[in-house]
Amino acid sequence: MDFDEVVTNIVESAEGALAAVIIQNDGVPLAEYKKPETSVDISSMSVEYTVVISEIKKASEALEAGAMEEITVRSDELVYIVRIINDEFFLAMILGPDGNTGKGRYLVRIAAPKVAEEL
Amino acid sequence: MDFDEVVTNIVESAEGALAAVIIQNDGVPLAEYKKPETSVDISSMSVEYTVVISEIKKASEALEAGAMEEITVRSDELVYIVRIINDEFFLAMILGPDGNTGKGRYLVRIAAPKVAEEL
Repeated sequence: MDFDEVVTNIVESAEGALAAVIIQNDGVPLAEYKKPETSVDISSMSVEYTVVISEIKKASEALEAGAMEEITVRSDELVYIVRIINDEFFLAMILGPDGNTGKGRYLVRIAAPKVAEEL
Repeated sequence: MDFDEVVTNIVESAEGALAAVIIQNDGVPLAEYKKPETSVDISSMSVEYTVVISEIKKASEALEAGAMEEITVRSDELVYIVRIINDEFFLAMILGPDGNTGKGRYLVRIAAPKVAEEL
């Protein structure tokens, strides 16, 4: 499996998608793709989201809320969808505010277990 | 506006909803309601989610991603929807894994600005 192809397909298959990235727990991207016209900084995003994911994992454990699967954060400018791949990796996708979030969630949900098999 | 009524209405209007709470930034609930049959611990949840929200706000600022509006966290057992009310308060809702998340998101999106007006 070509991880670059996975992230490229995700971005090109959802209307309004800007970028997608497979990130390791240390904040380093394994594969990334962004549309040429977007100014999204994937490196900074990866580092920041690694911190957020780690906090949410801690919260979920404290609350005994079960294994975390997905996080969506909406701001007035962007939508972030993060799907947990396994203990070490997660898949993140960014869409514009009018992007097709439902399609985005579907794409990352389908892709995550396929990526997990190869890691 | 009766804040207890707001959280009760949210829980009673979405299929599979378990609890809703208006939380201050220090983690203290202003109003809360949960279905009698749920074991969700609203106090612990409020404290844990206050930490998470603060981390996501920091991340959003670092990424210049615009004002954070909503966060959804899905685990295999629960769905948490958090809607920012203003700088000091947020509205959180918990649903079971088969709950109507779309309806839940709609309800908190509608309620948040009304609560904001009264605070």
